[in-house]
Amino acid sequence: LKKYSDFLTLAEKHLAAISLSNQPVELYAPITYILSLGGKRLRPVLTLIANDMFGGTEDKAIHAALAVEVFHNFSLVHDDIMDKADIRRGKPTVHKKWNETIAILSGDLMMIKAVELLCLSNHNLLPELLAVFNKTAAQVCEGQQYDMNFETQEIVTTEDYLKMIELKTAVLLGCSLKLGAICAGANKNDAEQVYEFGKNIGLAFQIQDDILDSFGDGNLVGKKIGGDITSNKKTILLIELLTHISETDSLLLHDLLHKSTVNNEAKINGMLALYNTYEVKQKAAAMKEEFLQKAFVNLASINLPGEKKMLLKQTAIDLMERIS
Amino acid sequence: LKKYSDFLTLAEKHLAAISLSNQPVELYAPITYILSLGGKRLRPVLTLIANDMFGGTEDKAIHAALAVEVFHNFSLVHDDIMDKADIRRGKPTVHKKWNETIAILSGDLMMIKAVELLCLSNHNLLPELLAVFNKTAAQVCEGQQYDMNFETQEIVTTEDYLKMIELKTAVLLGCSLKLGAICAGANKNDAEQVYEFGKNIGLAFQIQDDILDSFGDGNLVGKKIGGDITSNKKTILLIELLTHISETDSLLLHDLLHKSTVNNEAKINGMLALYNTYEVKQKAAAMKEEFLQKAFVNLASINLPGEKKMLLKQTAIDLMERIS
Repeated sequence: LKKYSDFLTLAEKHLAAISLSNQPVELYAPITYILSLGGKRLRPVLTLIANDMFGGTEDKAIHAALAVEVFHNFSLVHDDIMDKADIRRGKPTVHKKWNETIAILSGDLMMIKAVELLCLSNHNLLPELLAVFNKTAAQVCEGQQYDMNFETQEIVTTEDYLKMIELKTAVLLGCSLKLGAICAGANKNDAEQVYEFGKNIGLAFQIQDDILDSFGDGNLVGKKIGGDITSNKKTILLIELLTHISETDSLLLHDLLHKSTVNNEAKINGMLALYNTYEVKQKAAAMKEEFLQKAFVNLASINLPGEKKMLLKQTAIDLMERIS
Repeated sequence: LKKYSDFLTLAEKHLAAISLSNQPVELYAPITYILSLGGKRLRPVLTLIANDMFGGTEDKAIHAALAVEVFHNFSLVHDDIMDKADIRRGKPTVHKKWNETIAILSGDLMMIKAVELLCLSNHNLLPELLAVFNKTAAQVCEGQQYDMNFETQEIVTTEDYLKMIELKTAVLLGCSLKLGAICAGANKNDAEQVYEFGKNIGLAFQIQDDILDSFGDGNLVGKKIGGDITSNKKTILLIELLTHISETDSLLLHDLLHKSTVNNEAKINGMLALYNTYEVKQKAAAMKEEFLQKAFVNLASINLPGEKKMLLKQTAIDLMERIS
């Protein structure tokens, strides 16, 4: 039986073989660089798993798998400019290592290369594959814009937040799976269910990410805990807190968020105390669980024998138990 | 007989009807804005003319026409960030009117929308249309990177320059025409010749642009003359001058280019004097003429009666006589 790591190996092999030896080097070197930084390659692996699950041979879906990974990296390069992020996977971001102009332009080129890779798929499937891909790509941009808006937006509701993470993160997981399903010739309903499965897993995953940033074990998560808190990021935890907080406590919260005399440690401790008082971790965890269960319902409704769906289910479980 | 203005009206009508009323407004408003700034709509009109020339009805090529215009505007928005340009067609650029984040992201979205529009074409033609489009889109990015490199590059040869303008400007004109030809069902050779025609016209046009920036009539050209000179831009005029200049004069040139005590008027007059001494305007004009003649050879080789090719020929002539 095939494992996640088998598909990962396959994705890595083909990613390394993408021909990007073109000129000018200033434009292509950043693409090779960002693609070589690794990661779990979740998106292309999902494409390959879905394709395999629906009976496709690997050659049918490899181009779509590469396309989603290259697209994902395009979005990382441009997001890092907008977020003024200096480090990505322990290395300097493209706009830091080179400059902003090169980061914009090599990102643009990756977006184009993603479409180019997708177009290497079976030509009969192109209209359907491109429709899913284009829609998703637009949604990812919309999600990033909502995320940017949140920084200056007074009130962000749970609904706003869920819509943002759905667009920015979740739909690309759904898309990755659906492209694999289409490549394998899955029927419309199954392709839709595997899309919904991916979307719901993505929502659960992002909520978990918020929880871990405040409540995780820094050593296990692999980054400093509390970054979201110190930067006043509108996570599901903060949004839930704002929704439920009493008038008295909201004065305290206001000071924690906006008083420059509060140091980071005091801020983190103060916020965690409020999170505990209002049980927002539990509220967020319940939401995560709800999306996870929805995902399992989606998976169950796919017209395939249970053992065919095992790897996808296990992948979801592993993602959720990552480091909590 | 149809005229340029007929196709322009058609392109404008459909451009105005592109549905971009989506949320978030921060992302879509800049797209509507940049697309409404007008211009001669050369690229979509070329697509429509080529389609018509090869016997296609307008519905066959309208999506491809819109795609090249939206793609062109994507490249303008991102180039304006990189070039730190404040004004485009007399109005603030997107990153000035909004901000850089919005300019990056709405540009990204336009790139995606361009692919989406192209995908509305006849599905049987998608592999061919996308192959031409994707290749061209990548080349446009490469051209922009070369142009950026030129700013800090010591030596730029005429060959380097021609390669840069071919990628940055000329191939998109070729692509616009070729997409129209493919939509109309033109044969491979004719589609290739109309591509080469567009590319050569693009090269001639860009050289003319350089000439006009130093030698044009400001009132007719619609912008201040000498901008390329004051910014030390590596135009074909400067490159030709550097290639032919004597050792004595190159000391004078060095001062004009790099001495901060030289004011703009003196710099422009000094450079124009050198340009006249070395007859670089004539050299550039000869190159322009050569590309124009190549384009006419391409057009002549297309297997259609002469009257069918009249409008394309006239369009090229009008472009060249624009304001010289």
